[in-house]
Amino acid sequence: MSKSIFYHAGCPVCVSAEHDIVELVGKNNVEVVNIGETRNRIDEAEKAGVQSVPAMVTPNGNVLHINFGASIADVRG
Amino acid sequence: MSKSIFYHAGCPVCVSAEHDIVELVGKNNVEVVNIGETRNRIDEAEKAGVQSVPAMVTPNGNVLHINFGASIADVRG
Repeated sequence: MSKSIFYHAGCPVCVSAEHDIVELVGKNNVEVVNIGETRNRIDEAEKAGVQSVPAMVTPNGNVLHINFGASIADVRG
Repeated sequence: MSKSIFYHAGCPVCVSAEHDIVELVGKNNVEVVNIGETRNRIDEAEKAGVQSVPAMVTPNGNVLHINFGASIADVRG
């Protein structure tokens, strides 16, 4: 199985969701990307369908928006 | 580890998220509850902090609202 990608931006809602998702899915099954820091991956996230963070893109390409921390526009600043 | 509980109401957004979550977390680690059908569990979901479905309550009690299908008020109808 290929990995899921969990996109976040370091916000409190993001960090809480990250802990839960890593716990549930398993650390080895998810790549965690902070697009607030790794800004050259914002486009990739948006292209995958991510509209807000935290969000997880599953191996089959579905986007799960998990709670609401910030919009992509907010992350771009 | 105790199970997570995934609450949904049979809506298309719910069903899609359910498939993804069951795939990612593992069928044996999550109880799936359709509160549109099992209406006597709506109160339990709301008490746990669920504001809309689909949502998952983790073993430690955190609520992950995953995308948006319907509000609890919509489910109550």
